Amino acid sequence: MSEKYDHDSEYKELSGEEGRKKIAELAKGIHIAMMTTVAKDGTMSSRPMAVQDKPFDGTLWFLTRSTSEKIGELENDQHVTLTFAEPSDSKYLTLKGRASVNQDRAKIKELWNPMYKAWFPKGEDDPEIAVLKVEVTDGDYWQASSSKIVMMAKYAFAAATGGKIEVGEAGHVLV
Amino acid sequence: MSEKYDHDSEYKELSGEEGRKKIAELAKGIHIAMMTTVAKDGTMSSRPMAVQDKPFDGTLWFLTRSTSEKIGELENDQHVTLTFAEPSDSKYLTLKGRASVNQDRAKIKELWNPMYKAWFPKGEDDPEIAVLKVEVTDGDYWQASSSKIVMMAKYAFAAATGGKIEVGEAGHVLV
Repeated sequence: MSEKYDHDSEYKELSGEEGRKKIAELAKGIHIAMMTTVAKDGTMSSRPMAVQDKPFDGTLWFLTRSTSEKIGELENDQHVTLTFAEPSDSKYLTLKGRASVNQDRAKIKELWNPMYKAWFPKGEDDPEIAVLKVEVTDGDYWQASSSKIVMMAKYAFAAATGGKIEVGEAGHVLV
Repeated sequence: MSEKYDHDSEYKELSGEEGRKKIAELAKGIHIAMMTTVAKDGTMSSRPMAVQDKPFDGTLWFLTRSTSEKIGELENDQHVTLTFAEPSDSKYLTLKGRASVNQDRAKIKELWNPMYKAWFPKGEDDPEIAVLKVEVTDGDYWQASSSKIVMMAKYAFAAATGGKIEVGEAGHVLV
C-alpha cells in the first residue's frame, strides 16, 4: 500500500477553498483525532484528542492539560500530524501543521463544551487548561468508494471476472 | 485531554506477555493502521497501511512499494508510530517501533494475500514489492467503557445527578 494508490484511483491535487472544503467534508463526524508529536527521544508520540465540532477552516483548536507530556514535546518541536480514521467508511485523513500553546481564558471559554468535563472535572476555570492551536499546512486523504468489507467482496468478484477493482479516491490538499 | 486520563480511569502498566496480549486484543479487527514516519523536512507523514490478520506478537509486517515515499523516509529515520482507531468502539491504540525494509521473496510470499492485488495488480512477483517490518517497542491505548455517544450520554446524566462519568481505561504497554 503506497501513499498514492497507483491505479484505478482518482488522485487529486486540491488547494485553497476547495481543499479546505474537502477536509471539512472528510473530518465531519470524526470526533477524535490522533495527534502525533515528536518526543524528546526521537520517537513520535500519538494520542487521541477531542476535535471541536465545527467546519474545518485551516486551524484546529484543542483543549489540553498544560502539564501534559505533549506540551513539553511541542515546546521542543512544533510539528504536529493529525490523523482521522473512520474505518466504517474507509475514510482516512492526515493533516500536517504547526502547533502553538496558550492559556487565553476567553478562547478556553469559547472552545469549552460540557464534554470536556470528563477530562477537566473542575470545569472551564481549571487553571491547568491550555489551548492547543494547530495551523494546518497540508493534508492527504484516502477514501474507498465503499466500505472495506464491500470493497474486498468487490475485489474477489472482479478477480474472478478478470476485471479491476476500484480502490477509491486519494488526494493531496494544500491549505 | 491528556495522555493519561487523570481521573475515573483504570490506568495500567503492562509488560511482556500481558502487554502483547492486550495489544493483540485491541488491534484485533482493525484492518488499517496509520503509519507515521519522519519526513526529510522535519514534518511527520502518515498513511493508511493494511495490517496482517494475525495475533500481535511484537512484530508487525507490511507490504509496500519499494519506490514509495515512506521507504526513503525510513532510510533516513527508522522510527515509526502506528495508530489504530476504532471510533465505533472508542478504541485507540498507538504503537512505537523501529522499521526495516527488505525484499525477501519468501517473506513476501508468506505475507501475500489476495487483498494486496488492489495495490499490486501484477501480483506477488511484482519486483517493486517490499517488506516493511516494524519491531514494536511500546504502546499506549485508550478505551472507553462504552461507545463515545453512550459515554457522552452517560456524562450528561452524571452531571445532572452530580455524579462522575467513567472515561474508561488507558494503559501503557512495554513489549
